[in-house]
Order: sequence, then structure tokens, then C-alpha cells
Amino acid sequence: MNKQAQIIAIAGGGSTYTAGIVKALLMKGKTFPVAEIRLYDLDKARQDNVAVLVDYVVRTQAPHVKLTITTEPEVAFSGADFVFAQIRVGLYKMRELDEKIPLRHGCVGQETCGAGGLAYGMRTIFPMIKLIDQMERYAKNSCWMLNYSNPASIVADAVNRLRPNARVLNICDMPVAIERNLSNILGVNRYELDVEYFGLNHYGWFTSVKVAGEEKIPQLRAHIQQYGMLTEQEVENACHADPSWIKTFKNTQPLVQMFPEYIPNTYLQYYLMADDIVEHSNPEYTRANEVMEGREKKMFEAIAQIKASDGYVDGKFHVGVHGEFIADVAMSIAYDLRNKWLVIIPNNGLIKGLPDDAMVEVPALVGRDKVYPLQVGEVPHFYLGMLQQQLMSEKCLVDAALEGSYNKALQAFTLNKTIPSAKVAKKILDEMIEANREFWPALR
Amino acid sequence: MNKQAQIIAIAGGGSTYTAGIVKALLMKGKTFPVAEIRLYDLDKARQDNVAVLVDYVVRTQAPHVKLTITTEPEVAFSGADFVFAQIRVGLYKMRELDEKIPLRHGCVGQETCGAGGLAYGMRTIFPMIKLIDQMERYAKNSCWMLNYSNPASIVADAVNRLRPNARVLNICDMPVAIERNLSNILGVNRYELDVEYFGLNHYGWFTSVKVAGEEKIPQLRAHIQQYGMLTEQEVENACHADPSWIKTFKNTQPLVQMFPEYIPNTYLQYYLMADDIVEHSNPEYTRANEVMEGREKKMFEAIAQIKASDGYVDGKFHVGVHGEFIADVAMSIAYDLRNKWLVIIPNNGLIKGLPDDAMVEVPALVGRDKVYPLQVGEVPHFYLGMLQQQLMSEKCLVDAALEGSYNKALQAFTLNKTIPSAKVAKKILDEMIEANREFWPALR
Amino acid sequence: MNKQAQIIAIAGGGSTYTAGIVKALLMKGKTFPVAEIRLYDLDKARQDNVAVLVDYVVRTQAPHVKLTITTEPEVAFSGADFVFAQIRVGLYKMRELDEKIPLRHGCVGQETCGAGGLAYGMRTIFPMIKLIDQMERYAKNSCWMLNYSNPASIVADAVNRLRPNARVLNICDMPVAIERNLSNILGVNRYELDVEYFGLNHYGWFTSVKVAGEEKIPQLRAHIQQYGMLTEQEVENACHADPSWIKTFKNTQPLVQMFPEYIPNTYLQYYLMADDIVEHSNPEYTRANEVMEGREKKMFEAIAQIKASDGYVDGKFHVGVHGEFIADVAMSIAYDLRNKWLVIIPNNGLIKGLPDDAMVEVPALVGRDKVYPLQVGEVPHFYLGMLQQQLMSEKCLVDAALEGSYNKALQAFTLNKTIPSAKVAKKILDEMIEANREFWPALR
Amino acid sequence: MNKQAQIIAIAGGGSTYTAGIVKALLMKGKTFPVAEIRLYDLDKARQDNVAVLVDYVVRTQAPHVKLTITTEPEVAFSGADFVFAQIRVGLYKMRELDEKIPLRHGCVGQETCGAGGLAYGMRTIFPMIKLIDQMERYAKNSCWMLNYSNPASIVADAVNRLRPNARVLNICDMPVAIERNLSNILGVNRYELDVEYFGLNHYGWFTSVKVAGEEKIPQLRAHIQQYGMLTEQEVENACHADPSWIKTFKNTQPLVQMFPEYIPNTYLQYYLMADDIVEHSNPEYTRANEVMEGREKKMFEAIAQIKASDGYVDGKFHVGVHGEFIADVAMSIAYDLRNKWLVIIPNNGLIKGLPDDAMVEVPALVGRDKVYPLQVGEVPHFYLGMLQQQLMSEKCLVDAALEGSYNKALQAFTLNKTIPSAKVAKKILDEMIEANREFWPALR
Repeated sequence: MNKQAQIIAIAGGGSTYTAGIVKALLMKGKTFPVAEIRLYDLDKARQDNVAVLVDYVVRTQAPHVKLTITTEPEVAFSGADFVFAQIRVGLYKMRELDEKIPLRHGCVGQETCGAGGLAYGMRTIFPMIKLIDQMERYAKNSCWMLNYSNPASIVADAVNRLRPNARVLNICDMPVAIERNLSNILGVNRYELDVEYFGLNHYGWFTSVKVAGEEKIPQLRAHIQQYGMLTEQEVENACHADPSWIKTFKNTQPLVQMFPEYIPNTYLQYYLMADDIVEHSNPEYTRANEVMEGREKKMFEAIAQIKASDGYVDGKFHVGVHGEFIADVAMSIAYDLRNKWLVIIPNNGLIKGLPDDAMVEVPALVGRDKVYPLQVGEVPHFYLGMLQQQLMSEKCLVDAALEGSYNKALQAFTLNKTIPSAKVAKKILDEMIEANREFWPALR
Repeated sequence: MNKQAQIIAIAGGGSTYTAGIVKALLMKGKTFPVAEIRLYDLDKARQDNVAVLVDYVVRTQAPHVKLTITTEPEVAFSGADFVFAQIRVGLYKMRELDEKIPLRHGCVGQETCGAGGLAYGMRTIFPMIKLIDQMERYAKNSCWMLNYSNPASIVADAVNRLRPNARVLNICDMPVAIERNLSNILGVNRYELDVEYFGLNHYGWFTSVKVAGEEKIPQLRAHIQQYGMLTEQEVENACHADPSWIKTFKNTQPLVQMFPEYIPNTYLQYYLMADDIVEHSNPEYTRANEVMEGREKKMFEAIAQIKASDGYVDGKFHVGVHGEFIADVAMSIAYDLRNKWLVIIPNNGLIKGLPDDAMVEVPALVGRDKVYPLQVGEVPHFYLGMLQQQLMSEKCLVDAALEGSYNKALQAFTLNKTIPSAKVAKKILDEMIEANREFWPALR
Repeated sequence: MNKQAQIIAIAGGGSTYTAGIVKALLMKGKTFPVAEIRLYDLDKARQDNVAVLVDYVVRTQAPHVKLTITTEPEVAFSGADFVFAQIRVGLYKMRELDEKIPLRHGCVGQETCGAGGLAYGMRTIFPMIKLIDQMERYAKNSCWMLNYSNPASIVADAVNRLRPNARVLNICDMPVAIERNLSNILGVNRYELDVEYFGLNHYGWFTSVKVAGEEKIPQLRAHIQQYGMLTEQEVENACHADPSWIKTFKNTQPLVQMFPEYIPNTYLQYYLMADDIVEHSNPEYTRANEVMEGREKKMFEAIAQIKASDGYVDGKFHVGVHGEFIADVAMSIAYDLRNKWLVIIPNNGLIKGLPDDAMVEVPALVGRDKVYPLQVGEVPHFYLGMLQQQLMSEKCLVDAALEGSYNKALQAFTLNKTIPSAKVAKKILDEMIEANREFWPALR
Repeated sequence: MNKQAQIIAIAGGGSTYTAGIVKALLMKGKTFPVAEIRLYDLDKARQDNVAVLVDYVVRTQAPHVKLTITTEPEVAFSGADFVFAQIRVGLYKMRELDEKIPLRHGCVGQETCGAGGLAYGMRTIFPMIKLIDQMERYAKNSCWMLNYSNPASIVADAVNRLRPNARVLNICDMPVAIERNLSNILGVNRYELDVEYFGLNHYGWFTSVKVAGEEKIPQLRAHIQQYGMLTEQEVENACHADPSWIKTFKNTQPLVQMFPEYIPNTYLQYYLMADDIVEHSNPEYTRANEVMEGREKKMFEAIAQIKASDGYVDGKFHVGVHGEFIADVAMSIAYDLRNKWLVIIPNNGLIKGLPDDAMVEVPALVGRDKVYPLQVGEVPHFYLGMLQQQLMSEKCLVDAALEGSYNKALQAFTLNKTIPSAKVAKKILDEMIEANREFWPALR
């Protein structure tokens, strides 16, 4: 196959993830040649700063690749083959509030789950639609947007309603990160896993994990019930890693003890262990603070170092599953490879009991313009009930955004499994409205 | 139409409700002639005691009606036209635990809602099946069981799975009691209301309340948002009535303020205001205690009085909607009247988004051997999500009972909206297993 | 209930059925008082003629009732309580072609079934929509249109797509006429039958016929297998009746011999016995000729007689089920009687396997603004396949009309069970286009 | 991947197709190594004869491969990796009757379509189930049966009902043969086509045919409307090819002229052009005769030649898509290649409007133990109606077989689009019963 070099635009160029995505892309250069990378962001100052690091990555990794930095959609998208979207409306500042406001009321404070996720969704729907419209205006007709922007479930539902024919594929790297851990536990490469999975984004279960045709769920179940979703070594050396992620992977231990049928997505801790999560949360210092003072700070330090050193530093830069995954999916589309990935697509009968227009996360072979999903079929009552409740909470939120309805927003919050009552839902919602005045549509 | 006098068996003859049902039946004597009433209970002593009061009612009301008291199913059911089932497995003793165990863990403690309802369901499924089998063995082929036994949703689901062709119609008097209150507010007779309603048992909403073709929802909404589901007089004189019911009807005020679309079933307070309910509950003195020291005690006092007075007392005996409703439904079946009542029937497409085998509570015209339901159609996302979550919690409980599965029971409790986490669900479940050792099937 | 006298408009006032409907209405005067009858037609001359007979009926039957004759929709519909629609676009002239063109190609030639029905449907869709719009513009908000206009299935489908919220109830007297015959066979009054039925219009089956709670299907099956759907006397004296109807009722004999499960609608002969029907058809003289030279001619003779006699004649005028049925349905709506009638309503899950938007004919209790249908559930594969084929043929026809699509029209004809091949379908379609140039939308 | 050499059993070893399949398999030897081929048949004499040719193919093509000839299922299936099933119950003798009996009544006489297909299905259901049971008893747990045995739709439906978990994949080479013709028209290799397709077996449509991402339907439509499904050369040289196939491919011309949306499966001629087919059929000499005096005779001649020549002849042996396709599918399963093929699988929501248990023919990526189908979604009313009618006819036939029901069989025949009336259906059915006395289950 003639492998034409691709033009890839990254919307949300100022993200802490940008450099990692670019490096992952460039590392696949031989199998997936890139002609140009374009960073696009509304926040010029921040993006220019991040661009220093990206430029460093390009120069040291693949100097022949053109790097464009822009705040103009026309410049960013014209002739693009792919748009990688990873926007964060309101930045970490607002994420902090998404996390802290619910915690004040004794509820899970999280970026994409519970009240925080609903609030974040309300901020993100219309900017995503705008981005899609810009892509459709300027990019190639064959261009695909791969969307990482969170909260992916809500974004996917809104996009499916407002732009049902848009060439947008919503994806998430969490299942891939879990597969990485599972493959570490099994002592194999994560690309060797052949999984079955069903759910909504950040809300699903692995029902089969095979290696070379052999089912590994029993072995993984036993391991997780003892150690969580970490290898024995990782458990012992946990102190070296990011504590919130260690905690998250450890929390799969009680989950699989209590619900041993399947391997859960780690985000289910927020719904099934809400009390424990709240108890171990610090309302004064949340994940947003951890990121701002960790990943983000380190990135800005690296940028400062590059600037100071006149462009060269001896810094190794870890490329994680986040960057690898989006590059893998893009490649599978570009060359019709039909590789198997989890993607977020309309249900249309895949999971029985969910409506056709539910945006579900399932394995599919991803080709050019077509996906070939695995049919899930019936799921046990518990899992179906969990999914239905969460789906309807998210659908109420999208209803609220589209109709500008306070009532529907209150219903979204009330229905969410992390919120104990309508009264608490109302209090959180009212504070969220106040905090998001700049970002949310008006609700009546 | 030739109105043949009916033979009516009451299973759960020792109930505090028995005398009221009998009196309601006998008061309809002209339009619905009764030849014989049979009380059937497993608890001979208790039933014999209650029978004193029932005998008094029969003697003073309709002395020509034969009264039979028995603990033999063959005697109770042979040739019967109707079986009214109102069994309470474990009596108030167990109801007390249904209410108090969840409260110990900060959760709603209620007879039919939340953890208590699940526990009660687990006790009731198999005795109900046994009762149905006895009816099918001895009663007329045309005999119908009208089932009041709680928790009606779970019982209905289990019966629909295990005895799908049994002639059992599950009904509930709560919506009728609400209609009584609504008609008081409107200043009309409750039989004048023409309502639309959808939901599961103890979990539904009125979407239309018409009088003489005119929609009264706006007026009712405004009233309830100000006074709750009570007339102004009742609000003022609330001190004279049963305080837990006054509180319950008042709680519709915040519910309709927050969710103004429809008029809720009062039981929704347990799901939507769980924190408030728990806060106002006394874990040492619950509704079971209130009943035992109130309604039940008063009944036993009346019985003692009858015995002491050699059979005659000057006691007025209030017949409420409870007795009237079951008599009305029986009459509508017996004479193919096709009167409109709320009944609990398989969904089969009535409420879109719920499975065909959901047992839903909807209005239907009730005839001989056939019901003609109103088709509900689509319901808004919030209501659908609420229903789905509750339905799947109940279906998990039935799964657990039928499979003897601890896992499914834990799933039932975890999925319930009144329980904040899997860990709490597990604690309550484990205590419930201990408390119900005598009644529950073994769970592995 | 205060029985307010109704204003009833009859659209298609020039029909041969008008006088019968009016007489049936007036005969119910006490239970269903009528203030005014308005005849509305586009064909002034014909309607004025028919009005002579109607006026005669009114004068002799209920002189206090006002009779209005108009070609103005505003006059006809302003303030009306009911519109009875019975329009025949193209009159018997076009019906004749509906019947004769298919016969030329060896196919069933019938007014509402097969190619003729499709052609007639194409003529009728837009005039019906116009009529509905006029009703909605001028009549009371509470006004209902009861539609007899054929082909009812196609009309119902189109109205459901184009005016989904219109207050139109489609009905058909054929099942009532069959019930009349069945009750004659059983020796009871047709109002005593309690039936179950499912299908599309002119395409359904009785699955239960009860009298006083007792199932009569076995007895009816045996009778029909011997005599067809006629009493023994009617079989013997068949020569006195309309020969095409005698033949039709007799044809149920082979149908029930071959398909003994249910009692078929007589129109199924055209689909299941197409060869026999064609063989016994005279392509030069069809039912349209029979009507023009029979019913229509007799009517015009009667009118001439009335005119000649200065307004008084000694003519008895038989009122059949046609007029009685529409009056019964109107009364059931007007007074919320919830009587049981077959009506044509959106499926919405009533018959499993048919789409929600199929317009199905089922029993329902008919009330004011609401119907309470009997849920049919699953039907055997044969019946489902028959219904699906017919439904999709009709849906293609409506697609063709709405899209102006020749291709869809050809698909409608090809799919029809009465037409043996696409080639024949094309020939008939092309002749139909030619013959209907004045009436059909243009097809490209 | 370690490519373990496969053991492949061919059930129906005495088929005229056996040698071709074996040769196709052996030609893929490098990519799909075979250790042993086992021919299994109930007809020892015929299979021994065919084995002469197969032995010749093996010796000249891949002498290292073991060839086993057996009439013992245990010998045939023990340790097998694949069973290729291609049984023909009743042989060409009965096929001849399948074709000739309907023709006597003026109906399409065809092996798998219409009455002939129904009759053949009735013969094949139970022998297929027996074969599956034998495979499950003796073969590897991982063994798959690839079923070519006709009529595939009916066989698939019956197997899905009676052995829902059996490892049987039903396939058909007709679409592949059509793809071969289409690729000839386009001047490309058939493996370059990327198609979309939906339907039942021998009853479907190509909705997309892409080469290198470019849609070729418009070009193909134009070509077929002019030449049918043949290249210009083939049209000119048609005299050299099998006339019934030439006619078949030519008949796509009128089909695509009349229904230009999609490219039809050739078998649709029997349903849409039944009159033309019958007209051009010779009731005394059908396809069965053509095969017996053509393909079968030639095979027996070749066998005689081999025998006579002491085992060596200079005969070229054409391998068609028939053999290639089954080998390709087997390879895709064996190595989890996830290549794209049309397969016959349970619908489960793939084609909206068909039931979950419809066995539909759709493109899927075929892997080890899993298929990843393309979701079809909604199809236009005409196509849906065609599919539903055919599906229900076939389901009635399976009902008839499983229940031993004459009525259901009559319904199957009556519902079939190739049969004009119930009376004709009955005549054909009755003759079929007589002719199949030895093969059919008893029908009451």
C-alpha cells in the first residue's frame, strides 16, 4: 500500500499530553509516516509554551516533519488527514472545581465521573461541536477526528445527536492502560491480549482476556483479588509511582472480590465505592492539584530547561499508552488495517437492553470509514442496570445542555449513582452553575 | 347479568387488614354479592383472634354470608372465585428488622423500598408460589388471585417468571390512596378522576389527572408545591393523623418542587430523599413499631372488647381505600366491567425502554380474563433511568432467590438507589442473611 | 352525563353510503342526540342529488335535526364535533379502472387489495391530508375525524406520517359485517360477541370469538369449513343476495379449511386465493359495474322517485352495519363509553414483529381521546410474514407518493402478494400512471 | 504463528464438488498446511468412486497429505480441526423432483428457491443435526463445521434453534461467484473488492462495492443494465459456458433496470421474475438433468479414465471459487486472520426490522471463534418486506419439520413468493410429501 505521509492536527495543542502524542506518532514514523503536525489551541500563550517542548521532540525525533503552531482553525485543519482532539474547556482551574465542589457536599469529586463529569460535560459539548464544524469546513473530506476530549461519554452522546454524520471517533486510553497492567500481570506484551469488553466510557467491564486463544480471566481474577491491578513488584514499589493511580489500581481488589464475574474499568470505583473514595479524598487537594503540581509543573520545567539550554537537553521522555493508542487507531483507519481496539460507537443492538442511540464502548476492528464491532448480546441484570442508570444520567445532562433546562440538569445530577439525594444534587448543581457561569449555557 | 354470589378466600387471614377488606366487600353486597368468605392463614392462633373481629363484621353487616376459618388450603380454596392474597412472611417481627438493619448502616429502612424491600422480597417469593400452586390445585379454573402481598414488584416479577400463566393480578392501594388525597384537594369524589400513570410498583408517576375531561395537573402541582399532598385543612390538623403518613404526604412538596413534571408516588421519597428520610428516622422505633403499637394493638383491643362484651360493641370501623380497591377490582373482573384501575402487568411494549418482562404499574380497563392497558410510550430519560435502575435491582434479587446466589443478592443491594456503596450493601446483606436464616433460601 | 347534541359533518356527502349513515345516526337519536348534519363534497351536482334522499331521511326520521349541504369546508367543519370521512377520489369511474387494469394482466382487480388498492391509495393520500387540515382549521379542538375512506391501511399510514398528531381514527366496517355473519351463525346478537383480532386493515384474523365468556371458535371453524361464513339458510337462499358478497363469504370455506387456526377477514381471499379470484372475475364487468348498476342506480331511482312524488315515498331503507358502526364509535368517543371496537391505530408493540409505526387493526376500548387496546403479543410466523409483506408493500406506496418516486411505486406493486413478478408489476403500474394522470402525484 | 497442519473432514465426500474443494485446499498448502483429508459419506459406492479422483488430486498435488475414505463418523471426525459439510440428501434424483414438481404447477422449480428449496430443506434439517452431533462427539473441541449444505437459510435456522451453541458457520459461494464476475467487469482481482451486502442466503443485495476505497456501484449498475453480470466478452462468447448460468447472470440486467439501487444476488431472479423463469424452464429437463449429464457425467468419465490409465491422466482440473472460498474461510478461522467474508449468522440487531434469531448473510471479519460483522442498520421498505416474507416462509418450514405439522408446511409454501395461491401451494405440497416419503418427517 502506498503510504502517503499524513497531516495531523492536534486540537488542544497546549495540553500536557501534546508532546507525548507527538513523540508516539513520530516513533511510528516508518509504518505511519507523518508530513506535518499542527498544534491548534485557543490559548496562544500556553500553546506557544508547550510548542517549545513539541518542537524539541520533533527536532530530535523526526526533523523532516513540519511543525505548525496556530490559533487559526483554517490554518490548523486545511487539508488535514486527522484531527486529534484533546481539548480541556476551562483548563485545570475548572477541573479543580469539578472535583472540589462535590466533595464539599460529601460526594465523589472527579474529573469525568459523578457531578464533576456532568459539569465538565456541560462545558465541553458546544466547544466540541464548534471544533467539528471547523474540521468539516476546512479538512479533507476523508479526514477523521479522533476524540480524546473528556468526558467522552457525554461528548459522544451530544455529537451523535447534533452531528450524527460527522466523522468523529471517540476513544479512551483507560482500557488500554488497564490492558497494559493486565499484560504486565500475565507477563506478556499488551498487543498480545485479545479482549472482550462492554460498557459506556469510563464505565465498563472486560469479560474475556485471551492470550494465544487461552482465557486468562480466572488467573487475572485471582491475582486482582490478592494484589489489585498491579504486579507484585508494583505493589511493593508503589511508593515510586503516582499515588492516586496506585490507589486506583489497588481499588480493583475489593471490586473484583465483591463482583468477581468480570474485570472492571478502574473508574467504576467512583460509582461502586463512592463512600471509600470520598473518605480518602482531600477536599483541599485533589487530583487537579496533583496534576498541576506534578505533570504540568514538570512539563513547564522541561520547557524552561529547553529554552535555557538553547534547545538541547538530555531528557528522556516517556511515551505512554495515551500517545501510542491514538496513533495506533489513526494508523488502523488510514490503512484500513482493521486492528482491534475499543471504540465508542452507537449501540444499534450491540448490547441488548440499551437503546440504539447509546454510545457504547466495545471492541471493534477499525478500518477506513467502517468499524466491525463485536456483538455483545445480553448482559446480566446488574450490569445492565448500572449502564442504564449512568446512560440516562448522561442523557439528561445532554438534554439539559441542548434545551437549556435547569430541570433536566437537576435530573442528571439526581440520577447519578455518586449523589445520594435530590437535595444534595440541587446544592451541587447550584454551585456548579455559579462556578461555570463563563462556560455553561444558561439554564432556565 | 346474572350476579352469582362469590366465594372469596383471603390468604393471610390473620392480617390487620382482613376485617377492613371483609367490611368493604360486604358493603358492596348489592352490586357484588358474596356467598362465603374464607380466612386462610398458617398462623392459627393469630387468625382465630382476628376472626373474632371478622365474625363481628359479618354478623353486623351481612349475616347471611358464610364465614369459614381454616389453616387448610383445600378448605380455603376449593371452589373459590377469588383469592385475595395479603400474606406477610415473618410478620411485623421481621418487618421491624427490614427497617432497622439498613438504618444501622445509615440507609433507608422501609418495608418495601430499599434494602428492607429486597429482604422482604426474598422471604416472600417462594411462599407466594406455594400459595398460587394451592389455588391452582383447588380453586375454580376461573378463579383469580388478586395479590396485595408486598413487595409487589418483586413478587410480580418472580411469579411472572415461575408461573407465567397463573391467574394472578398484582395490585396496590397506594395510588388509590394518593388519588383519594388528590380528589380531596380538588374537591371531587375519587371515582371521578381519570388518571394516567406509569412506573413500577411503589415507584411511579401520575402524568395526567383529569376530571370531566379537564386536566388538573397544573392545579395539583401548584397545591402540592405549597402544601404537599394534603388539603389545607389536613395540613392544619395534621396532629390528629398518623404522623408517618402525614410526613409522607408532605414530602411530596419538595419532590414536586424539584421535579414538577409529574405527580410522584409517595414512595419515591425513599429513593429521591433518602438522606432526609434517614435523618428523620429513629433506628430504635420504626414504622413496624408504630403499627404494632398502633393499628395492630387497636385491633387486638377491639377483639378483646368484642370477646368481653359477648359479641356486641358499639365500634365504628372505618373502611379505607385498601378494602374498597380490592373489592372494586374483583367486581370489575367478575362482571367484565372494564373499569379503569392501576394494575401491575407485563410491560410488553407499554413503556418504551423497559423490557417486555418488566412488571409495570399502569392504568388498564380490567375485564374478565383480559386487561386493556393504556399505552404509555416514551418516557423522559430521567424517569426511564430511575425505572431501569430499580427494575434491575429487583431482577437481581429475584435472580438471587431463584439461583441461590450470594453474588446476585449483593448486586441487587448494590444497585439499589438507597444504598451508597457496594461495601455498605455487603454489610446490610450479611446482616439480613443472618436475620432471615429461617426464611430465606440459602445463598452461596 | 349531559348529552350535548352533536354537529356531525360528512365529508364525501355525495356517497351512496351517506343516507344510510345519516339514518343510522338518527336512529340512535335518544342515546346520541344530533343537532346538525352537514354534507360536504367537492362534487356539488352529485351531492345535491344525494341530499334529496338525505333530506327525506331527516324529515321522516328526525325533523328537528338541521341539515346543511355545502361545498365550503368552512361551512362544513366550523364548530363540528365529528367529521365522518368517506371520500372516494375519482368516484366509481376510477374504481372501475382500479379493478380492470390488473385483471388485464391476470391479477386480482379489487378496490382496496392488490394493485387496485395501491392505485386508489395513491389517489387518496393528499386529498385526505387536505381534508384533515381543513378540519383542524375550522372544527372544534375536540373534534375527531372518523375515517372510512379507503384504502384505509394506506391512508392511515400516510396520515400517521404526515399528520401524526391529528385527531383521526381510522375504522372499517368489514370486521363488523363479519361479526354480524358470525353472530347469525351462532344465533346471537352481534353486540354479544367479544372478539380478539389482529392484522392490518382488510388483512387480519379473528383469534377469539366469545359469547358470555365461552369460546366459539371451534364451532365457527366447523361451520365455516362446511358452509363458509353464511348461515345454512343464507347458503340456500343465496340467490336473493348480492352475488359477489355471497361468493366472498363462501370463499372463507376453503380458507378455513386450509388455515384452520383463526377466522380470516374475507379480504384475505384476494391474497390467498388470487388465482381463483381472477379465474372467476369478468374483466369486462367488475364490482364497480355491479355497484354502479346496483346500489348507485337504485339510489338514484329512489331520489328520482322522491323528487317526482313531491317528497314522500313509501320506501323502506335498510340500515346496515356500515352506518351503525360509525355511529357507535362516535358515541363511544363522545361519552367516553370505552366500548370495544376494532380500530386502526399505531402498533407500538401491540403485535410483536411489526414496527411501532405500523397502523394495525386491533380491538380496543374506545374512549374520549384515548383508546385502550388489547395487547396481541406474538403471532405465528405465517401470519407475521403475511402482515409484514403487505405492510411493506403499502409503506412503499406511501414512500412513492411522498417522494414522487417511480422506483418506490414499482417496489410497492412488486412486493404485493397478488402480483406474480416485477415485470407484471411494471406493466400494471405503467397503465395505472396513465389512467391516473389527473389524480396521482408525478412519479419520477 | 505456528501453523499446525490441519485435519479436515469432508462430509458428503461423494459430491461432485469434493475433488475441487480438495484441490483448492491443497493449492493453499504453504499458507494453510493440511495433514489429512477425510472423506465421509453414507453412500459408500459413490464415495469410493469419487475418491479415485480425489486420490488422484492428492497424489499429483500434495502426496504428503494423508487421505482417508470412510463411512464411519468416528473415523471421519476424531481429532478433526474442520468439517466441511456439503451433504445432499436424496442426491440429484431428489433434486430433480424438487425442480420438476413445482414446474408441473406452473411454479419456479429450483433446488434452493421456492417450493423446491422448502422441500429440500425438509429433507436436510435432521441429517444436518445428526452430522453436527457426530462432530461434537468425536472432533476436537475447537473444531468448526463450515457448512455449504443447501438450502443454507433453512439449515441455518434449524441449526440455530436446535443446536444454538454448535460450532457451525454457514457459508455460501454464490456471492463470491458474483464478486468474481463483478471484479471481471471492473478488471480487478476479486480479492480487491471491499463489499457491503445484506440479506438471507440466496436472497440479498450488494449495497457497496469498493476498490481501493472508491465506490464502484454506479459503474457496475450501468454495466449490468446493459450486459447483465457478465463482461462484454462473456456476453459475446456465452455459447461456450454453462447456459443456465449465462441466463442467470444475464437476468440481472432486467433486475437492475427495475431495481437500480443495489446489485442483487442472482437467485433473486426466482422471486422477482418467477413468470419469466417458469416460461423459460423445461419441465422435462431441469438443472438437475443438466448437472447429471454435465458436471456429474464428466466427473465419472474422468474417474473412469483414471482407473483405466492406472492412475495417471493428463487432465487439468479447474478450481473455482467454490473450493477457494471454503478454504479461505477455514484459514481465516484457523489463524484468526479476521479476513472479510460474507457469512450467515444470527441477526441480533444487524438488520433492523428482522428478528434477533433471523439467520442473515452479511459481511464479517472472520476470526478464531468470533466474527466481527458490519452493522447493516435500516434497509428500505421494499427490501425489508422481501426479506421478512422469505424469512417467515422458511421459518414456517422449520416449524413444520420440528412440529411435524402439515399446517405449518402449507403455510410455508403459501407464503413463498414463487407460489401464486394457497391452492397451488397445497397441490405442490401434497405431491412433495408423496415424493419425499423416504426423507421427510411425517406431517400431520
